Amino acid sequence: MSRLTDHTRWWGWGGESRRAHLPDHAGELLHREIGLDPQPWRGRTGAPVLEEVRLPEGRLPARLRGRLHAALGAEHVREDRLARVSRAAGKSYPDLLGLRAGDASHAPDAVLEPGSREEVAEALRACAEAGVAVIPFGGGTSVVGGVTPSRDGFEAAVTVDLGRLDHVHVVDRRSLSAVLGAGAVGARVEAALGAQGLTLGHFPQSFELATVGGFVATRSAGQASTGYGRIEDNVLGLRMATPAGELTSRAVPASAAGPSLRELAVGSEGTLGILTDVTVALRPAPAVRRYEGWSFRSFADGVEAFRMLAQAEAAPDIARLSDEEESRLSLALASTGSVADRAGRAYLRARGHGAGAVAILGFEGESRLVARRQARTARLMRSSGALALGEGPGRAWARSRYAAPYLRDELMDAGALVDTLETATSWSGLLDLHGAVAGALREVLAARGTPPLVGCHVSHLYGTGASLYFTVLARAEEGAELAQWRAGKHAASEAIASRGATITHHHGVGADHRPWIEREVGGLGVAVWQAAKERLDPQGVMNPGKLLP
Amino acid sequence: MSRLTDHTRWWGWGGESRRAHLPDHAGELLHREIGLDPQPWRGRTGAPVLEEVRLPEGRLPARLRGRLHAALGAEHVREDRLARVSRAAGKSYPDLLGLRAGDASHAPDAVLEPGSREEVAEALRACAEAGVAVIPFGGGTSVVGGVTPSRDGFEAAVTVDLGRLDHVHVVDRRSLSAVLGAGAVGARVEAALGAQGLTLGHFPQSFELATVGGFVATRSAGQASTGYGRIEDNVLGLRMATPAGELTSRAVPASAAGPSLRELAVGSEGTLGILTDVTVALRPAPAVRRYEGWSFRSFADGVEAFRMLAQAEAAPDIARLSDEEESRLSLALASTGSVADRAGRAYLRARGHGAGAVAILGFEGESRLVARRQARTARLMRSSGALALGEGPGRAWARSRYAAPYLRDELMDAGALVDTLETATSWSGLLDLHGAVAGALREVLAARGTPPLVGCHVSHLYGTGASLYFTVLARAEEGAELAQWRAGKHAASEAIASRGATITHHHGVGADHRPWIEREVGGLGVAVWQAAKERLDPQGVMNPGKLLP
Repeated sequence: MSRLTDHTRWWGWGGESRRAHLPDHAGELLHREIGLDPQPWRGRTGAPVLEEVRLPEGRLPARLRGRLHAALGAEHVREDRLARVSRAAGKSYPDLLGLRAGDASHAPDAVLEPGSREEVAEALRACAEAGVAVIPFGGGTSVVGGVTPSRDGFEAAVTVDLGRLDHVHVVDRRSLSAVLGAGAVGARVEAALGAQGLTLGHFPQSFELATVGGFVATRSAGQASTGYGRIEDNVLGLRMATPAGELTSRAVPASAAGPSLRELAVGSEGTLGILTDVTVALRPAPAVRRYEGWSFRSFADGVEAFRMLAQAEAAPDIARLSDEEESRLSLALASTGSVADRAGRAYLRARGHGAGAVAILGFEGESRLVARRQARTARLMRSSGALALGEGPGRAWARSRYAAPYLRDELMDAGALVDTLETATSWSGLLDLHGAVAGALREVLAARGTPPLVGCHVSHLYGTGASLYFTVLARAEEGAELAQWRAGKHAASEAIASRGATITHHHGVGADHRPWIEREVGGLGVAVWQAAKERLDPQGVMNPGKLLP
Repeated sequence: MSRLTDHTRWWGWGGESRRAHLPDHAGELLHREIGLDPQPWRGRTGAPVLEEVRLPEGRLPARLRGRLHAALGAEHVREDRLARVSRAAGKSYPDLLGLRAGDASHAPDAVLEPGSREEVAEALRACAEAGVAVIPFGGGTSVVGGVTPSRDGFEAAVTVDLGRLDHVHVVDRRSLSAVLGAGAVGARVEAALGAQGLTLGHFPQSFELATVGGFVATRSAGQASTGYGRIEDNVLGLRMATPAGELTSRAVPASAAGPSLRELAVGSEGTLGILTDVTVALRPAPAVRRYEGWSFRSFADGVEAFRMLAQAEAAPDIARLSDEEESRLSLALASTGSVADRAGRAYLRARGHGAGAVAILGFEGESRLVARRQARTARLMRSSGALALGEGPGRAWARSRYAAPYLRDELMDAGALVDTLETATSWSGLLDLHGAVAGALREVLAARGTPPLVGCHVSHLYGTGASLYFTVLARAEEGAELAQWRAGKHAASEAIASRGATITHHHGVGADHRPWIEREVGGLGVAVWQAAKERLDPQGVMNPGKLLP
């Protein structure tokens, strides 16, 4: 039943069957630009050997074990090496650094696999009474340390894997809503809904592995969220098991009945309880999907055009705009060196777009409506000086839309620091924020002797602003990888926090953004979160060390 | 500075200058249908005399008075009869019954008029330390008892009128956002924004009187919220003064930084603190507004068409669909008896729409876009069997869109029970809910010998469902008005709660919906609200007797 089988690359992304490979010229480029050693990586692999991983003795209290065996069945209370090691961490760069180094010292003492809401509730009661920390686990794809067990004074910790709660139940076709199990994986949800002509429209980069519960617990946004809305825009109701009982939010289209408990559960990252069921709003599956490439003379021109689209209600469902650096790198990495390639580039240069910014626009829906929207947006894009690049770049993006995390494994094999971070701010503040974050990263990493490549794209549009998504690539400092990462993270986060932008637009807080959360929500805001936690989780066993400072 | 001047009809709606008058044939119709006495009402008026109103001696503690005088200035600590009586209640039917009967026994002991965020904060600290209840007051238009002081064991109560915090400050034109003072009245906000070519797009029926703080504190929805979104969809950030300090929610377009504190402040109805500033998202002011009438053979046909529009993303910005009873009454009341009128009706009868359901659709925005949307929606409406009635009914609706509460005063003068209530549910449940609520009201009031008219309209569309807005008219039971109202309210609320619909879609909870709130959010949900309240308002002085059961 468990989705994390022996085949899973627990020290990296996804399964063995799906690997990314950088073309040779990419290796050369990275050698030239950040000094990665181009040779050794082909044969190299970061794969640690399961049996050699440092794993502390399990410390699940015997009485609790007995109670859990009785409640879940002994086979769903796993204490074996693979189960524990594969839930020892999420998929952040520091997480992977640790696992690749053979360190699973954070691993939970046991992995529970409840098969029903009632079993989740009973597991929580048992752990709370035993004073054992509980870490909820969906796809395990957190990139902010959200699922890495942190004992924080607790003698033992268990991870609750929601994989068996994977139902997709279209309750109400007329009202376009469904109840999804928290453990249902994004891709499975779309497959099941698609078979009925429906879609949730939620496609984060972790789509193939991450779960509905994870989406909701971390306030996820997907690649098409400019059109379909963020996950919280599509949550109608939910059920959350807490040590104090079940918190429910009734699925109604809208309500004025007081402060939103749904919005308190959304984003709570397992610190208040475990989501079990989520009722979501659906849409008819799109008849067509059209993805197209555009080029701007500069990132600033593109930002201005995207602002205009968003404010004229002409934004596409998918709207991405790479800055000059990201555009240059994508083009270089995707280039085949062919005559057509070179001709295309010469054309762009001739139009003044030689060192420009590339945008991807995507439209989904009923075909006539899509055509009409596409035409209107194209008119506005052209009036902003954008050049149409056709569907080629759009198709290329769509093909590799979930590939980046696989690529990260390859790059780490090659000795690279690879990280991504994201934020959001007003349109007025966007260019300043962009420059400040990229500048901070370049400065701090250059000072360490590892000048980075920092690319960025606008990934989600709102009427009042947009998000920025940064990718950092540098040569890893051998032996000081973690310190190097921390220096970059700190510099970028300070640049964000000091400008009043949000510390996270869709990755969540986890452990990595905790140091900045109080600056974002204020001391009293944190106190209110704590008050809610004390009521729902009086023993404080739920995901300690996350979210709350 | 105070907006409640001596001219204000504190026992009714709005000012003296703006009165509604029912035509003679309306009086005859109401006589015929619910037995209202058609004669005496012309001369009659429910206006009580200020000097004769029963008003308890003010009990503001002397020490607190001194502190408040020092903090706000003595002229902004009002203890005069008019100030107190005009904040003794909101505008619910029971509120008006009491005031018309000369009962201001609920009146606050003083009315504070702070002029800044700091003064609000200092007033709260002073009242919390003195153990005096605090009732926030914006436009005073609550129809659920939200501003009626309830001492709940406190020796004294003060009302904080936010009227002086009425700034409208467009901070950021590029990002389309503004900071609005909590006391800024809806109409004033639109006038100020309109002068700059912008709009908030929030037009509840109380638009001429209600304030931004009130909108946010009660999760208001406006007549155009199908298009512009509910108030919470347009709140980017806010500041709320609480006895424990200021709770702030940073204005960013979107964030994944934990549970939403903004969504905890929204809908808190003054029980956690007092909103002072709200940062909102704006839109360009619409170049055109087009309102049009349509007719369906039946309410059920219209509901089905509205569902289709909402799910095809073809919903207009304003979408209202009256049921057969409301359609019949509107037509009858609006009728002039002219030949054209009679011809129009004959036409509808001939098409099978004689006893049908009337819809109003409204489109706002840039003119070409409006024309295109209008055409697409019209195509879908026709395919659902709807008949276009042209712009006449749309214009008539727009002319009287804020008039109903004025009319209520006239009807109460004539001896009528007049109330409205609203709810929302899924598309699948809508017709059942409609029948159940109307049936419950008819049954319980008929049993008391006052068979009512119960009209209803769908007023807001969502992909997953819609809201229902009921109007009840009956002969008031002289001497038992309140018991009669309570019986109706109870019957309707039970019909709503037992069907899993929300007890309120946009009026809020206040005092009147409290008995049903725990069924809606659960015992643990209430406990979480209480935990937040204990942290922000440890002395429990904020708007006691509201929201929390």
